[in-house]
Amino acid sequence: MTRVVLRIDFDDKRYIGHGRIELLEHIAELGSIAKAAKAMNMSYKRAWYLADSINGTFAEPVIERQHGGRGGGSAYLTKFGQILVRDYRGMETRALKLFAKPLKHLEMRLAPTKRAHR
Amino acid sequence: MTRVVLRIDFDDKRYIGHGRIELLEHIAELGSIAKAAKAMNMSYKRAWYLADSINGTFAEPVIERQHGGRGGGSAYLTKFGQILVRDYRGMETRALKLFAKPLKHLEMRLAPTKRAHR
Repeated sequence: MTRVVLRIDFDDKRYIGHGRIELLEHIAELGSIAKAAKAMNMSYKRAWYLADSINGTFAEPVIERQHGGRGGGSAYLTKFGQILVRDYRGMETRALKLFAKPLKHLEMRLAPTKRAHR
Repeated sequence: MTRVVLRIDFDDKRYIGHGRIELLEHIAELGSIAKAAKAMNMSYKRAWYLADSINGTFAEPVIERQHGGRGGGSAYLTKFGQILVRDYRGMETRALKLFAKPLKHLEMRLAPTKRAHR
């Protein structure tokens, strides 16, 4: 199934892409950066780096963290963080619909795969 | 200046993204995979791997290569290759227009940067 993945480059350093949005969704769901990292098979260090980077991109926080000793405490998305995820996913869904025709056009020209039935 | 970068995932192995389209554009312009690689600061090996991968994605060739001894000979885009680039760039341009409002919304919330005037 074809899907369109968006990356939004604000400038040459700051961007929001699929992996970052997925991390935010996992944090929202699991209430913890450590658990989100684990769910995504990502190192805790990398998840923290990304969380810092996302927070540093905007003038207001996206992720709020509460320290809780070893293991990292809890984390949740701010109202703005929720809007960010919603807007990104909304654009993604709209892109898939809006580009249905050119995507279908390309799909029809894909090479046959070994797995004929999927 | 915010821009939207698209990646089209046909399945879990095959995709077309910004870097691949850029490679195609350079090949179209320069008439050579070696020159395209150089222009993109990419190894020749990597450019060949990508060219093979792009050609293998579709039922018909995207890039035609003519061997010419050391240095790699010439290369050009097929008619389908030109359509692929045009369609991808068309979707990208449309995405930027269509998402102008949510993108503006996010832009307004960006953290101030050190370079105040740009």
